[in-house]
Amino acid sequence: MQVYFDNAATTALEDEVLKEMTAVLKEEYGNPSSIHGKGRSARARIEKARRTIANGLNASLGEIFFTSSATESNNMALRQAVHHLEVTRIISAPTEHHCVLNTILDLSNQKKIEAIFLSLDENGNISLEELTALLQQNRQTTLVSLMYGNNEIGTIHPIPEISKLCREHQAYFHCDAVQVLGKFPVDLQKISIDFLSGTAHKLYGPKGAAFLYMNENALIPPFITGGAQERNMRAGTENIYGIVGLAKAFELSIKDMEIRKDKIIRVRDYMKKSIESTFELVTFNGEQTKDHLYHILSVAFPYSAKNEMLIYNLDIKNIAASAGSACSSGTNKGSHVLEAIKPNDPSITIRFSFSHKNTIEEVDYVMETLKEILD
Amino acid sequence: MQVYFDNAATTALEDEVLKEMTAVLKEEYGNPSSIHGKGRSARARIEKARRTIANGLNASLGEIFFTSSATESNNMALRQAVHHLEVTRIISAPTEHHCVLNTILDLSNQKKIEAIFLSLDENGNISLEELTALLQQNRQTTLVSLMYGNNEIGTIHPIPEISKLCREHQAYFHCDAVQVLGKFPVDLQKISIDFLSGTAHKLYGPKGAAFLYMNENALIPPFITGGAQERNMRAGTENIYGIVGLAKAFELSIKDMEIRKDKIIRVRDYMKKSIESTFELVTFNGEQTKDHLYHILSVAFPYSAKNEMLIYNLDIKNIAASAGSACSSGTNKGSHVLEAIKPNDPSITIRFSFSHKNTIEEVDYVMETLKEILD
Repeated sequence: MQVYFDNAATTALEDEVLKEMTAVLKEEYGNPSSIHGKGRSARARIEKARRTIANGLNASLGEIFFTSSATESNNMALRQAVHHLEVTRIISAPTEHHCVLNTILDLSNQKKIEAIFLSLDENGNISLEELTALLQQNRQTTLVSLMYGNNEIGTIHPIPEISKLCREHQAYFHCDAVQVLGKFPVDLQKISIDFLSGTAHKLYGPKGAAFLYMNENALIPPFITGGAQERNMRAGTENIYGIVGLAKAFELSIKDMEIRKDKIIRVRDYMKKSIESTFELVTFNGEQTKDHLYHILSVAFPYSAKNEMLIYNLDIKNIAASAGSACSSGTNKGSHVLEAIKPNDPSITIRFSFSHKNTIEEVDYVMETLKEILD
Repeated sequence: MQVYFDNAATTALEDEVLKEMTAVLKEEYGNPSSIHGKGRSARARIEKARRTIANGLNASLGEIFFTSSATESNNMALRQAVHHLEVTRIISAPTEHHCVLNTILDLSNQKKIEAIFLSLDENGNISLEELTALLQQNRQTTLVSLMYGNNEIGTIHPIPEISKLCREHQAYFHCDAVQVLGKFPVDLQKISIDFLSGTAHKLYGPKGAAFLYMNENALIPPFITGGAQERNMRAGTENIYGIVGLAKAFELSIKDMEIRKDKIIRVRDYMKKSIESTFELVTFNGEQTKDHLYHILSVAFPYSAKNEMLIYNLDIKNIAASAGSACSSGTNKGSHVLEAIKPNDPSITIRFSFSHKNTIEEVDYVMETLKEILD
């Protein structure tokens, strides 16, 4: 049996997405900037995709810009806000994705901003009081960068409240929403955000296709300069099939959100209960009670030499899970997220993350394997 | 009949490229940064692709970095060279692609560099004497950015001589090679270049997949920061199927270079002769004698109200050609390349650009249509 429980790292393509992409790969080879028929039909595909994304977020067409990754989107938002909106202070949290953290640190090392990281409780929650105090503190132009939901531990930040605080204190608000899109509804008319990023490969779409939502009141110039693509906001010939795949994946994730959610929660709850009833000393990382990312189950096994090899032993048994986030697993460092909420905790964490394709049978197989390895 | 004579703007996918990409889209959904089997096999695909690109350029594996477009590659090279190699002067030419020109202008507007644009003859050739004089002029850290071959008029710069001059004067050399790769051999052991960019969609590969070659002696830090992808040089989850498609397309373009070249030259020469023998007052833009891009035929029709509508009338007859480059055609401005070499020339230029799939029959159809429209 092959089990893929690493859906927070990336997901397999939905069949419908693959079908649409293949058609585009075969037929729509025109350059969307060309004025002839082949160019115009490629352009039409992109604009249809833009409408899908805009509708899904309750945003305007003119607020959606396609990029190559959420990492690029986040670089664009943070760097251009600093360079062109006179942002001199960024308030963030140590549990952000590396593409946000490292970009903030780079800007800070260049002495362009003051970087402030909020303190967190052991579940990764920020304190709204601390954020309020910081926003009241001075009149520097501030950007708050906080992710919607955390990719390693699943904790969701109180985004409506953060948005409100930013508005009250004239701070810009950037939100990395890659793990939340397609899992929870996001209505940008109800929650005011300046910059929001999303990516296809977390929602059963292709890698290399992402977007940045940019509030029409917070326009920044392009991060990648050149041709007039994306209404002069992001140069480079468009990845049409990727963009079409992104839109299809996003559309399906909204249409089937409740069905998928029920399936995922059933599998996650079953696995969580199985673990609780099998392994006495095991705990779970991140918020487990109030709203959290229901596709993520971060399990802390007590430290032992055996447990330290757990992720590799699962892999030998064809079970794909993650020690932390995929993006940092190449580096041999521990998880910066766990270090931020549970410093010096020797536990061995395995993140299992689920899709609507996963089954109870797969959980049974993983549980059997865990018992074999750990007993 | 549908005729696509706009292959310098972008190309249709080769069947073999599509086949490889489809397999990857279906099977290789792992995140290359994941340590489990699914991640490792995705990683292996990327490293195999890197080897193909490196071999094709006679470069080292460690000198190839995948990006989302040549535009991104060029932004990365130019911006990071200025920020991290202490480049304070960029010498370029007014016929560069907008992604180079606008990036240089942006850096110049920010007062980070002095931008110098070489003068050109009416065929778009630079003067090596002028370049030499500029390089001798002072001791500022200089980067020379000159494209290999021009996308609108096909003129090829004397890259070996430029490379030699740069080395003699300790200047960095950046070269946008998108139109030349797969058309002419490029051996980076014979010609020393610091930064060279290439992209898949100009060589029958996918859009959204490109690379930057970076000489191991001219390493710059990442332009897009975040995770440890691309050995910490370009963050963001990799577009695996795009990268695989890029490598396959590049491999085929080298393997079949001579066969494709013969086919393309046959079609181009036939079209050129047909035009010469049919339309008396027509001339050709760019270098026609010494080495030039053999897939590009830039035709200058004398100004008339009829000719001004030529590109649209060709489109009505299902003939895809270009007025200038695709990247600028959305903007309604004239070609900056033609303006640089033939200022105030009222001629109407149509760029026809060919692939090895184009035929003599297609040329005949285009010629008939041209006669119909213009007579």
